[in-house]
Parts: sequence; C-alpha cells; structure tokens
Amino acid sequence: MSSKRKGISAERELIKLFWSNRWACIRVAGSGSSQYPSPDLLAGNKIRKLGIECKVTSSKSKFFDKDEITQLTNFCEYFGAEAWIAVKFNRRGWYFFSIEDLNQTPKGYSVTEKNLEIKGLSFEELIN
Amino acid sequence: MSSKRKGISAERELIKLFWSNRWACIRVAGSGSSQYPSPDLLAGNKIRKLGIECKVTSSKSKFFDKDEITQLTNFCEYFGAEAWIAVKFNRRGWYFFSIEDLNQTPKGYSVTEKNLEIKGLSFEELIN
Repeated sequence: MSSKRKGISAERELIKLFWSNRWACIRVAGSGSSQYPSPDLLAGNKIRKLGIECKVTSSKSKFFDKDEITQLTNFCEYFGAEAWIAVKFNRRGWYFFSIEDLNQTPKGYSVTEKNLEIKGLSFEELIN
Repeated sequence: MSSKRKGISAERELIKLFWSNRWACIRVAGSGSSQYPSPDLLAGNKIRKLGIECKVTSSKSKFFDKDEITQLTNFCEYFGAEAWIAVKFNRRGWYFFSIEDLNQTPKGYSVTEKNLEIKGLSFEELIN
C-alpha cells in the first residue's frame, strides 16, 4: 500500500473508533493543501472537541515539522478545540500526544517508540 | 460550471467568509458518501460550533430530503454543534436557516426565495 493510502486507511480506522465510542469524527477535505490551517481529523462530543493530526510509521520514531504543528495549534485556537497528535507505530496501535508531550528537536518535534507509554495516551485514556 | 463544481466553489466562498471573520471553517471529506452522518462544512470559534449543509440554486425554491436533514441533525447531536442550512439563491447571496425555520413538505423540507428574509439569517446575523 502507498504511504498516502496507508494514511487514509489509518484515518478511517480512527474515525470508526470514535463513532463506535459515540463520538462524532470527520476527515477534513484537503488537509495540508488548503490555504487555511487544518487538522487531519476533527472529533467531538457534547463536551470536548479534538483537532487531530494522524501519523503512521514503520520506523522507531516519527518527526513533525514545526510548521505542521503550528498549523494544528493555530486551527485549534480559532476553532476552539484541543490539539492532539495520533501516532500508530507498527504492531503498537494508536497513541495520542498533546503538543507539550512531544520531544523538541532543532527542526521540530518527535515521538519515539521507546517513550510511547510514558508520554502517550491510549484511545481509552484520550476519550475518558 | 457543473453543479458539483458550483457546489464546491460555493463551499470555498463560505469557508473564506468564516476565516475572514476569525472563525475556523473546514470542508468535510466525503460528505454525503461516508457511512457516518456528516455536514458539508464545520465552522467554529471558542464559543460556538456550526454544522452546515450548503446549497446553491438557480431556481426560486430549494428542497431537502428528510434523510439529508436527519443526517445533519444526527451529526450535530453527536458532535455537539448547531445544525444550519446555508442556501445561496442567484444574485441574493447567502441565507442561513435553522431546521425549525425550513418549510415542511410531504417528503422533506424547503426554502423559497420569497421567505428568505423573513426566515433566513444573513451571514452577519448568523455569527453575531
């Protein structure tokens, strides 16, 4: 599967996970190519709204551009939503990170497989 | 312009209108074809969230399927958003209707050019 198809399939998986837990979740059209900032997914229930950037990786760490994160936090600031990064490492399922819990690097941010469980939340922890 | 292109161009126009008034607004991917209910657009600021179904028409009235409206209200119920219909009649600009302000018909709902100003809100009225 191409990495774009892998990404969309992973996003669909998350959308299904939210709906099956009685949260609404949609995929944003043209995310990353629009002239306005936007997340990959928007999830919400009566109380909380989450703007989510999704990543799937087969390596042991995942990097994020500063710009990518700025776009996410800008969108969430305007929309009134919490900003979250969802990362799926091979065979490890989904982990969710707030921006403060990403590692800072000279060019941006990163998450490593090693500190998934220390800094990341499981889906159940995220929604509860 | 095809009616699909007209629809997308109208949605872009609304997205721009929201952002230029300091609201965030995104287009939902696969709206109408997804297995989950979804609006065409989602707009929000720190206080309010709006799920919006957009229509453009060159005739004097516009009809809505019961199912289309049910999908919109279902989504908004789960997501925690207000449900709005945005209609653009030729040369009249945008008008916004809550579900209660649509005319009920045997098969669904309608809006006519005649009662735009009585029942519809302008963009400024919608966001203020």
